Amino acid sequence: MAASEIDHHWMTRAIQLARKGWYTTTPNPRVGCVIVGPQGVLSEGAHLKAGLGHAEANAIADAKQSLEGATAYVTLEPCSHTGKTGPCSDALIAAKVKRVVVGMTDPNPLVAGQGIQRLENAGIEVEVGVLAEQCEELNPGFLKRMKTDFPRVTVKMASSLDGKTALANGKSKWITSSQARSDVQRFRAESCAVLSSAETVLSDNARLTVRQEQLPATMKQYGKSSLRQPDRIILDGRCRLTGEEPLFEQLDSLVIVRPEGQPAPRPDVRLLSLPYTRHRFDLPRLVAELGARQYNELWVEAGPALSGAFVAAGLVDRLVVYIAPKLMGHHSKDLLALPMMNEMNQVIQMQWESVTNIGPDVRLIAEFK
Amino acid sequence: MAASEIDHHWMTRAIQLARKGWYTTTPNPRVGCVIVGPQGVLSEGAHLKAGLGHAEANAIADAKQSLEGATAYVTLEPCSHTGKTGPCSDALIAAKVKRVVVGMTDPNPLVAGQGIQRLENAGIEVEVGVLAEQCEELNPGFLKRMKTDFPRVTVKMASSLDGKTALANGKSKWITSSQARSDVQRFRAESCAVLSSAETVLSDNARLTVRQEQLPATMKQYGKSSLRQPDRIILDGRCRLTGEEPLFEQLDSLVIVRPEGQPAPRPDVRLLSLPYTRHRFDLPRLVAELGARQYNELWVEAGPALSGAFVAAGLVDRLVVYIAPKLMGHHSKDLLALPMMNEMNQVIQMQWESVTNIGPDVRLIAEFK
Repeated sequence: MAASEIDHHWMTRAIQLARKGWYTTTPNPRVGCVIVGPQGVLSEGAHLKAGLGHAEANAIADAKQSLEGATAYVTLEPCSHTGKTGPCSDALIAAKVKRVVVGMTDPNPLVAGQGIQRLENAGIEVEVGVLAEQCEELNPGFLKRMKTDFPRVTVKMASSLDGKTALANGKSKWITSSQARSDVQRFRAESCAVLSSAETVLSDNARLTVRQEQLPATMKQYGKSSLRQPDRIILDGRCRLTGEEPLFEQLDSLVIVRPEGQPAPRPDVRLLSLPYTRHRFDLPRLVAELGARQYNELWVEAGPALSGAFVAAGLVDRLVVYIAPKLMGHHSKDLLALPMMNEMNQVIQMQWESVTNIGPDVRLIAEFK
Repeated sequence: MAASEIDHHWMTRAIQLARKGWYTTTPNPRVGCVIVGPQGVLSEGAHLKAGLGHAEANAIADAKQSLEGATAYVTLEPCSHTGKTGPCSDALIAAKVKRVVVGMTDPNPLVAGQGIQRLENAGIEVEVGVLAEQCEELNPGFLKRMKTDFPRVTVKMASSLDGKTALANGKSKWITSSQARSDVQRFRAESCAVLSSAETVLSDNARLTVRQEQLPATMKQYGKSSLRQPDRIILDGRCRLTGEEPLFEQLDSLVIVRPEGQPAPRPDVRLLSLPYTRHRFDLPRLVAELGARQYNELWVEAGPALSGAFVAAGLVDRLVVYIAPKLMGHHSKDLLALPMMNEMNQVIQMQWESVTNIGPDVRLIAEFK
């Protein structure tokens, strides 16, 4: 194999390791590390959970022999700051590795090239940008938050082929299949927070939790311990929640958003108070607040009004739309409430990220440009 | 190769030959034929156009040597009746082939097993049902018409991701891409008739013809001579067409449908008179009439009202929906007008036939169950 092929091979393995923490590392990024000697792998590590060891530290700690002269492959630039753990760049220097191959630099202002600088200052050969695109795909939410302070926002919708989300009388159980709903569970599990409205919660009697038994079979590898319950952020502008709904059975992952000056529906639930005018919360401020709370990935499951308000405010990164091969007709309810458009150039443009069959339905993922 | 693999191999070739007539055989079926001896292919033929030779007759006529003892592969049961040409089963008997492998029986009541019977009576070994499903896919419209007297009806729609087909003010140029519109040209070209309404024609200033220069590049193999202009059936219930529209520039492929008792917009155009009550034509009667006129494939490009009326009347076999990754909002126009539904079990069920990326858009084809 050519040198670059060897690098690709080991970086692919590091990416694989990083995926072990897919559902758990937040607010930290998913990172994997392989340390390789002339005879092959010396040690491997992944970051699994905030507060636990970083990928490089785990790999170094797990090594059964000296790492002197070895090459370390890391999906993200090793950190240079002391957080809950010491700086990984220092650990690599102390381990006397000869070369470090880095998937991509870390846009985190606390790192941002300093980790690489530190390694180079110690005389370590550093290569940056190997399989960078795949390394980026490990952390879309984290990277967006580091660059903009906002989480990545995904709006989910379920639709008939003719673009309807409920009958005129509100009935909608179920437009899409159990396979589609199971796919939604997976998206919830990989999100830091699920956002919805009191209206949706009340009409569906929803808990919005991740239900282990409804996760797709492909996730069997992830046991209960490698999943966490995303926070549930419920917008309750009209203070309709009583605190008795099924939602409140798990208080630790629940946040109720109410207009400033309004009390929580019960004293033991987390409350987020926000400006509320003309029947609407200040959504940019809400999303900024959720970024400040270190949510990388925000998953919105709401009705046409709130989903449309997020889109119209330019706060959405992508739409995930499950389309069932069904027709509901023009009397049924629309997918998305948006301001009136009078010219075709006002139409909101996106592009497909993926088009996938999910059981009897189709899942279309569209990204905003 | 095992015997069945050999049969599959040659039937695949026969199917390939049948596709030569994809855009031209109507009202006849697309049929291909290969005649094989111990050394390989002796002769090949395809049916290209009604009035011209059938596939088997063409293969026999083209043979440079004796076909005695050979095996003939035909995608559809050889005919037993004398139409514009003599019965193909007799031609195969006269050619002294030893064995005939038939993709599928012909549901045409004039054939329906009699062709096979005739071959067997002459002592020819006959095998039926080799790659039957693929042979059926050559002639969905013909087969439906033979079984039901109705053409296969496809309704085409262009939609935003949120199920809208025009802005509130009617503007819709263009929701979908030039690639999607080029794909539509291909569907028109393979249809026997394109059906639309005067409203659509007037608002788009449409001709509804197949435009050679707009066909996809993959169709370059089909020259002008291997395409025909499908008939254009225009529903003009309110007699709004004057006869001066661009539509009328090609009179030979045009049929205007008007309420009984109403004259044609001009004397030199074909007129189809039909019952018209409560602002609507009797659609089942219209489709039956088009079946009687030997249209195998009917392609409907109309607005939400007419498309919805076709669907509600149970006359549609499939929908072809081009979805652009765009959002138009709830004020925009719905895709399909259907009667009010109060329960989820009234929702019209379909299933996906295919999901395909077409340029920047997605094409979803759904079949009614």
